[in-house]
Amino acid sequence: YRSYKNLMWINGGNQIQFADQKQEFNKRPTKIGRRSLSRSISQSSTDSYGSAASYTDSSDDETSPRDKQQKNSKGNGDFCIKNIKQADFGRREIEIAEQEMPALMALRKRAQGEKPLAGAKVVGCTHITAQTAVLMETLTALGAQCRWAACNIYSTQNEVAAALAEGGFSVFAWKGESEDDFWWCIDRCVNLEGWQPNMILDDGGDLTHWIYKKYPNMFKKIKGIVEESVTGVHRLYQLSKAGKLCVPAMNVNDSVTKQKFDNLYCCRESILDGLKRTTDVMFGGKQVVVCGYGEVGKGCCAALKAMGSIVYVTEIDPICALQACMDGFRLVKLNEVIRQVDIVITCTGNKNVVVREYLDRMKNGCIVCNMGHSNTEIDVASLRTPELTWERVRSQVDHVIWPDGKRIVLLAEGRLLNLSCSTVPTFVLSITATTQALALIELYNAPEGRYKQDVYLLPKKMDEYVASLHLPTFDAHLTELSDEQAKYLGLNKNGPFKPNYYR
Amino acid sequence: YRSYKNLMWINGGNQIQFADQKQEFNKRPTKIGRRSLSRSISQSSTDSYGSAASYTDSSDDETSPRDKQQKNSKGNGDFCIKNIKQADFGRREIEIAEQEMPALMALRKRAQGEKPLAGAKVVGCTHITAQTAVLMETLTALGAQCRWAACNIYSTQNEVAAALAEGGFSVFAWKGESEDDFWWCIDRCVNLEGWQPNMILDDGGDLTHWIYKKYPNMFKKIKGIVEESVTGVHRLYQLSKAGKLCVPAMNVNDSVTKQKFDNLYCCRESILDGLKRTTDVMFGGKQVVVCGYGEVGKGCCAALKAMGSIVYVTEIDPICALQACMDGFRLVKLNEVIRQVDIVITCTGNKNVVVREYLDRMKNGCIVCNMGHSNTEIDVASLRTPELTWERVRSQVDHVIWPDGKRIVLLAEGRLLNLSCSTVPTFVLSITATTQALALIELYNAPEGRYKQDVYLLPKKMDEYVASLHLPTFDAHLTELSDEQAKYLGLNKNGPFKPNYYR
Amino acid sequence: YRSYKNLMWINGGNQIQFADQKQEFNKRPTKIGRRSLSRSISQSSTDSYGSAASYTDSSDDETSPRDKQQKNSKGNGDFCIKNIKQADFGRREIEIAEQEMPALMALRKRAQGEKPLAGAKVVGCTHITAQTAVLMETLTALGAQCRWAACNIYSTQNEVAAALAEGGFSVFAWKGESEDDFWWCIDRCVNLEGWQPNMILDDGGDLTHWIYKKYPNMFKKIKGIVEESVTGVHRLYQLSKAGKLCVPAMNVNDSVTKQKFDNLYCCRESILDGLKRTTDVMFGGKQVVVCGYGEVGKGCCAALKAMGSIVYVTEIDPICALQACMDGFRLVKLNEVIRQVDIVITCTGNKNVVVREYLDRMKNGCIVCNMGHSNTEIDVASLRTPELTWERVRSQVDHVIWPDGKRIVLLAEGRLLNLSCSTVPTFVLSITATTQALALIELYNAPEGRYKQDVYLLPKKMDEYVASLHLPTFDAHLTELSDEQAKYLGLNKNGPFKPNYYR
Amino acid sequence: YRSYKNLMWINGGNQIQFADQKQEFNKRPTKIGRRSLSRSISQSSTDSYGSAASYTDSSDDETSPRDKQQKNSKGNGDFCIKNIKQADFGRREIEIAEQEMPALMALRKRAQGEKPLAGAKVVGCTHITAQTAVLMETLTALGAQCRWAACNIYSTQNEVAAALAEGGFSVFAWKGESEDDFWWCIDRCVNLEGWQPNMILDDGGDLTHWIYKKYPNMFKKIKGIVEESVTGVHRLYQLSKAGKLCVPAMNVNDSVTKQKFDNLYCCRESILDGLKRTTDVMFGGKQVVVCGYGEVGKGCCAALKAMGSIVYVTEIDPICALQACMDGFRLVKLNEVIRQVDIVITCTGNKNVVVREYLDRMKNGCIVCNMGHSNTEIDVASLRTPELTWERVRSQVDHVIWPDGKRIVLLAEGRLLNLSCSTVPTFVLSITATTQALALIELYNAPEGRYKQDVYLLPKKMDEYVASLHLPTFDAHLTELSDEQAKYLGLNKNGPFKPNYYR
Repeated sequence: YRSYKNLMWINGGNQIQFADQKQEFNKRPTKIGRRSLSRSISQSSTDSYGSAASYTDSSDDETSPRDKQQKNSKGNGDFCIKNIKQADFGRREIEIAEQEMPALMALRKRAQGEKPLAGAKVVGCTHITAQTAVLMETLTALGAQCRWAACNIYSTQNEVAAALAEGGFSVFAWKGESEDDFWWCIDRCVNLEGWQPNMILDDGGDLTHWIYKKYPNMFKKIKGIVEESVTGVHRLYQLSKAGKLCVPAMNVNDSVTKQKFDNLYCCRESILDGLKRTTDVMFGGKQVVVCGYGEVGKGCCAALKAMGSIVYVTEIDPICALQACMDGFRLVKLNEVIRQVDIVITCTGNKNVVVREYLDRMKNGCIVCNMGHSNTEIDVASLRTPELTWERVRSQVDHVIWPDGKRIVLLAEGRLLNLSCSTVPTFVLSITATTQALALIELYNAPEGRYKQDVYLLPKKMDEYVASLHLPTFDAHLTELSDEQAKYLGLNKNGPFKPNYYR
Repeated sequence: YRSYKNLMWINGGNQIQFADQKQEFNKRPTKIGRRSLSRSISQSSTDSYGSAASYTDSSDDETSPRDKQQKNSKGNGDFCIKNIKQADFGRREIEIAEQEMPALMALRKRAQGEKPLAGAKVVGCTHITAQTAVLMETLTALGAQCRWAACNIYSTQNEVAAALAEGGFSVFAWKGESEDDFWWCIDRCVNLEGWQPNMILDDGGDLTHWIYKKYPNMFKKIKGIVEESVTGVHRLYQLSKAGKLCVPAMNVNDSVTKQKFDNLYCCRESILDGLKRTTDVMFGGKQVVVCGYGEVGKGCCAALKAMGSIVYVTEIDPICALQACMDGFRLVKLNEVIRQVDIVITCTGNKNVVVREYLDRMKNGCIVCNMGHSNTEIDVASLRTPELTWERVRSQVDHVIWPDGKRIVLLAEGRLLNLSCSTVPTFVLSITATTQALALIELYNAPEGRYKQDVYLLPKKMDEYVASLHLPTFDAHLTELSDEQAKYLGLNKNGPFKPNYYR
Repeated sequence: YRSYKNLMWINGGNQIQFADQKQEFNKRPTKIGRRSLSRSISQSSTDSYGSAASYTDSSDDETSPRDKQQKNSKGNGDFCIKNIKQADFGRREIEIAEQEMPALMALRKRAQGEKPLAGAKVVGCTHITAQTAVLMETLTALGAQCRWAACNIYSTQNEVAAALAEGGFSVFAWKGESEDDFWWCIDRCVNLEGWQPNMILDDGGDLTHWIYKKYPNMFKKIKGIVEESVTGVHRLYQLSKAGKLCVPAMNVNDSVTKQKFDNLYCCRESILDGLKRTTDVMFGGKQVVVCGYGEVGKGCCAALKAMGSIVYVTEIDPICALQACMDGFRLVKLNEVIRQVDIVITCTGNKNVVVREYLDRMKNGCIVCNMGHSNTEIDVASLRTPELTWERVRSQVDHVIWPDGKRIVLLAEGRLLNLSCSTVPTFVLSITATTQALALIELYNAPEGRYKQDVYLLPKKMDEYVASLHLPTFDAHLTELSDEQAKYLGLNKNGPFKPNYYR
Repeated sequence: YRSYKNLMWINGGNQIQFADQKQEFNKRPTKIGRRSLSRSISQSSTDSYGSAASYTDSSDDETSPRDKQQKNSKGNGDFCIKNIKQADFGRREIEIAEQEMPALMALRKRAQGEKPLAGAKVVGCTHITAQTAVLMETLTALGAQCRWAACNIYSTQNEVAAALAEGGFSVFAWKGESEDDFWWCIDRCVNLEGWQPNMILDDGGDLTHWIYKKYPNMFKKIKGIVEESVTGVHRLYQLSKAGKLCVPAMNVNDSVTKQKFDNLYCCRESILDGLKRTTDVMFGGKQVVVCGYGEVGKGCCAALKAMGSIVYVTEIDPICALQACMDGFRLVKLNEVIRQVDIVITCTGNKNVVVREYLDRMKNGCIVCNMGHSNTEIDVASLRTPELTWERVRSQVDHVIWPDGKRIVLLAEGRLLNLSCSTVPTFVLSITATTQALALIELYNAPEGRYKQDVYLLPKKMDEYVASLHLPTFDAHLTELSDEQAKYLGLNKNGPFKPNYYR
């Protein structure tokens, strides 16, 4: 979702300034707006086996992984993780994930014949989860060498990291890294005698910036950057604008397939899930106002309507507004319905959409949550005043109580509900991972001159290929154009079928 | 849901036999099919404040409540609970529940003028939860005296029991009673010098049976029994059939309003919730087969269709089958789709619907769960064979693994998904509690002769009244018939508007 | 649809009075509330081939069929129709109808082995359409002799009557009968030397009453009456109440299958069709109020919601009101939304629901129509005042214009929209015809004593059989109970699966 | 809809050749693919008052309008129409249309202050309908002078033309022009002593081409062309490509608002309407295959799913295919379901999607129709073989009968169903007309240099303005950005809110 303009707040609207980066990174873990951070937390909290979780906990000796001598069963020690003994358990998780990521498995199969990443030396910095492990092992099958660090200090699944290390990957990551650990791990990935990366796979831009800062000469050999996150993509566009981007970069965050799944389809399900898990609210008959009718708003509205809620919509853009009308939603201003609704959901990408004035007028028991990008859509700060009492009633659920006893139910303190209070389905992660793999292949194999020192969207044809790799999951059978039809339409039989700007 | 025929298994198809009841009660806690038991467990696990839970735990001294000297702040000691000190916290929970049970609050308001239960002495045996407390305090406001025990050894919210005791109620209940405690508590409710109950409110039939067994003479003064559960109602019909029912009884389980909410509307939401919480599955594009197209099946199908699943239905009854067709679902036999579906849901009330043969043919990763009454709809027993490996991957989630590596994902071991893996919304509980209160009022005030020694459904007019008390929640405005219209339709302006058999 | 109470107005609430019947019949063609009349008109206006229509018209010589000498190609002259030359064309229409009535064709196939109506002499009085012809030829295949008249003076398809006469049926009917013709035709059916009917198939009760009046002795040989219409059923109940019903009668109007199709499923489609054909209105974004949330209202609301309308509901019954809430519709009083809605639809079975006061307050361009039983739901009479101008803008569409220029768009002058302005799908007619055939078989073959001189609903098992005969149309496969399952459920493997009161 | 590539067949893929244009124009009336032609025919057949139609017919003297002396009541004779006496009736139709085109009326209101078209001399060539009259009178209110001809020889509403002539417009059009009349009328519009147009409003490109051919010098004074149709836009792009376009042109066909309404929202309703009007088919339970899941396909699928059909989808593009999956439709190849479906709908823009081989395998009674752009999606030509019998059963409905008696039901001979067999809602026409008016204003007032000699899409801001003018119809209230929010988002408070490529 959302234009990069919206992201100016991330670094204060300034150009990337490497000098004072430290300060920024210090604030990292509290920056809730970062999609990837939140995702990893909620995900790891539910994706793991119960037994695994406790195993991890019980092994909680206090020695830092950095201080331990580590070796896998083959004597390889070029990694740094929590506990190599968890490898078997991590392998089982990876195997389960493999079953739900058929697109990557299909790429591996194709790789038996050709190795499109032969010679590629990939450094990666992403969440270390079972799904990432499937990606890494796929890249290896495609011919690449990989070294990996975590893009988040909390999100590493230690048992998966162990399985990767045991399998021969140079992984540097554990759950609960300090900030110093975080940069140390990244550095260990990159800084190796006799080895230089030629591809970067990044999620958030930290790895990229570390290389910019410490090893700018490395870029001479680097063929390209694949970046997954909104934040990282934003940084790349800034670099590009400033004329400082010295290799081509692929923005996989904005590929059609990924966007539709991250927004419309995923949110259609996660709005229900997030609300149920936190509040057990019954949807039938409830009056709900959804602020914003972009893809996320469309998904939320469709789901709630289907469950028997009465849904109102607010919009600033007349075109989206007209769509809301035609889809059967009353278009209102927030103040017109704020007294009567049972649930308020923001998905605008804007700030201060639900301000204190509205919060004051909500009825007792009203649930307030945010599905949008920015954690400032609801002006939560305005609720931190002495006359209001906060009561934490469950994880991610606060009652804010007015002097007259009125309570509103605030979810995830205004942060992204779907990432804080529900989980991201593996299917969505599979689409992302496949897109990353194809983007690496494209950049690595592109003929000289196809890509300049700029930020690119995935070519439509690759986007279509990602989609096609996921159709077998649904036992879906695509029709092929006949030669005659292709000619009639002026299309290549194998696509691309849509113009690049198609959304 | 469902006919009483289906329940024969509960006590082996025999008549009620008081002599060997012990044995039956011994088996109680493992009888998963009992709707009320499961409900309470899931409910209490989520409805409580996190802090409360730990508070409860920390107060876990090992002395039995029966062995303690207990007094509330006014010196009253006619109760037996875990810890009177939790009263304040329980009161807060009750106050929150009050806000979500407006129908009972409306009854209290009306009670300022008239006291329809003045003189009523009610003994109750239900789950002791915040919602029950709101009911009990409403009965008191209506003029009744109440004594209460728990109908389940696990379901008592200790802090609520404390608040009730502090408020002057004679409550005998705590979480984690032994079977002996269970009957001791019931006996303490009933057996009091100088006090005789004249109304019974029961959930499961245990209280009723205790009185039958121990104090049969009490029935001389008892004006009626209100029974909530399928099981208890079944027992009453058996008593009636055997000519042993000696007072009128009201079956509130089968009132229209309660049924629609328990089945169609509640299941429409809980099927999604139950599947998400346990498996994080994405619904879009999934192929699902729903066995049975009664109210529960209709709710499941509607929800999944709305989320983008492709839904197949199996049915034995051609009328329901034709409804499925008209609602847009392909009607199939299970064996026609079993190899291709991603999710199998049973809601038939029947047994052995999903047998080993079908389980053998499911594809890898298929999710299997039961939304129907009986925990034998899926033949789970057939999966307990040596060649299959069971892996518990989360609470309520088992992977059953075939020798070739195929896994099926079995939820709640085939027990009711919505009660095991999701929660019952307060709105549904409110409808039940209001129905109970009105049934007590009706039986207590009915003129001599209106009710014989038989089991009755709530008069349609009362059912309509329950519904009308819940309309304000939705800010819903009912239209009134004009005199002329009422005459034209041959109806009383205040209802009943539908014949008694209307469903 | 709906209770018989509502029908009291049909004959002024009096008992059936044969003496002054004349007067009533005189008014027949203007009684718009009669479902069957309206149906036949709309149906014949669209079901016929264009060419046929003109053929019929061109043959419009002025001689009355009663004055013509008529013979079919085999020399048989025991019939009276418009023009035997149209037989070939009528046969083609019948053949097309056969393809869409597979259930009757299945009965014919079964009839090759057994003739359940062998010896039956059926007099019928229904609309003479291609669908009826399929029914009549099926009854003959089942062993019956048939003589037939039209139940409506306008609804006969002349070419179908010709085909029937050519095929040897004694048919007495043509389009545009006078009232005298009407009774003459019925009399010719019944009053034949050496032939006495033993079964009656009636639609509206006119045939039954003619026999009551003229040939009461005939009832000695008559085994039963099958009645299709609301009006006819009402008359039978009155006869029964008055102790004057002298044979058993089967009410096929109220069978579950027929009801669900006539109301919920049929109206879900016909509300859209009726509105589009008359007004070309776009549904998306329109605000609509639906008065009444019974089966008809539920169908209308579901369809309009799906098309993107914003739907409000009014109700008098709190149970239906609560259902509306849970299904996602705001429950309002009509006066709360009357100024803002674009479309008003009545489906209450009540009278004066939309009165002049509301009509005065509607906004310019508001569309008003009735889907309910009674043509007094909208107080159309109140619009016949001098200050309002009526403008007929299309067939079935009037603009009523206020002095200030405001127009409301009144459809079908408040009569049933779905019958006036759309058509009844053959599938619905097939269900009705199959039900009639099975009811005849049941009454004709019932052992002595099974049916008394009363009005009966079709046994649930027959209802289920009708449904099962229509499943193959949808390629729908019913599951069969195993012996073990049937025993567990306490059901017969072949049904009935539901209690008789199931709706 | 859809890319211009698809349109190459229209003129054989060649450049525009003025020399042999004659031949092309001769074929005009049989070119069914032309959206605007079909639309006008269906529209005029239903939009007119019944009485008007007959009036028109009765005035059918045989003198050509070109041979009559014509004057309106003010003595003005600069027009040529059928019959000036119909003016009053035409005025009433225009007034009714005004009520449904609030956006144009709003523009008129604004025009009281400013006259953005002051000095504009517009020649127009569009369908002459009541809606066009509202547009023309709006342009006049905005300051323009207008001269108008019909873009289609059949589509003129004579009474509307009369009202326009009476109102002082120079209109040259009547229903049933010959081809020679057609060009004569266009010439009369353009070729007037002492008057030169400076704006062109065209629908189909005929007017534009006439000026190119006959009066190329006129382009020196022309500020721009506004073109509405796919065909006309295609011609303009070809001119542009060939370097022959000598003024800026505005493509209003591809504005977002128009596209969404023409395709998704309009087709969602018209697929149901078109099928019902032609076949009275019941949708519930029917199996349908929809070929193509673009906007049109999405609309068709959503509507049919909502009505209880079981819908299959075929696609060639994996991205649209994945959307179909997530929306709950099975993605198949046509041959996999062709034997079992009841209805086949094409909306691909492709040719030969349903070929004879598939038609041979369809089951008896299968309905086949086309909602897509091209009338070659169904290979209707392949059905014109001797062994197949064609039977016209209604207007737009043919039965094609195989030797074994199998019939398929072919609608509109494979032409666009929604234009042939249903009507275009005034709301959609209002959006088009408003877009045309704003495009004229934009081109007329654009500062020198904003537009070059090229084809342009309407600026997003104008598109948004069209949308906003239609919101009041739905009583929809748009939210305004605060200054702070606009700054945060980097947007102007008044839009545009979306990038120009937004769809």
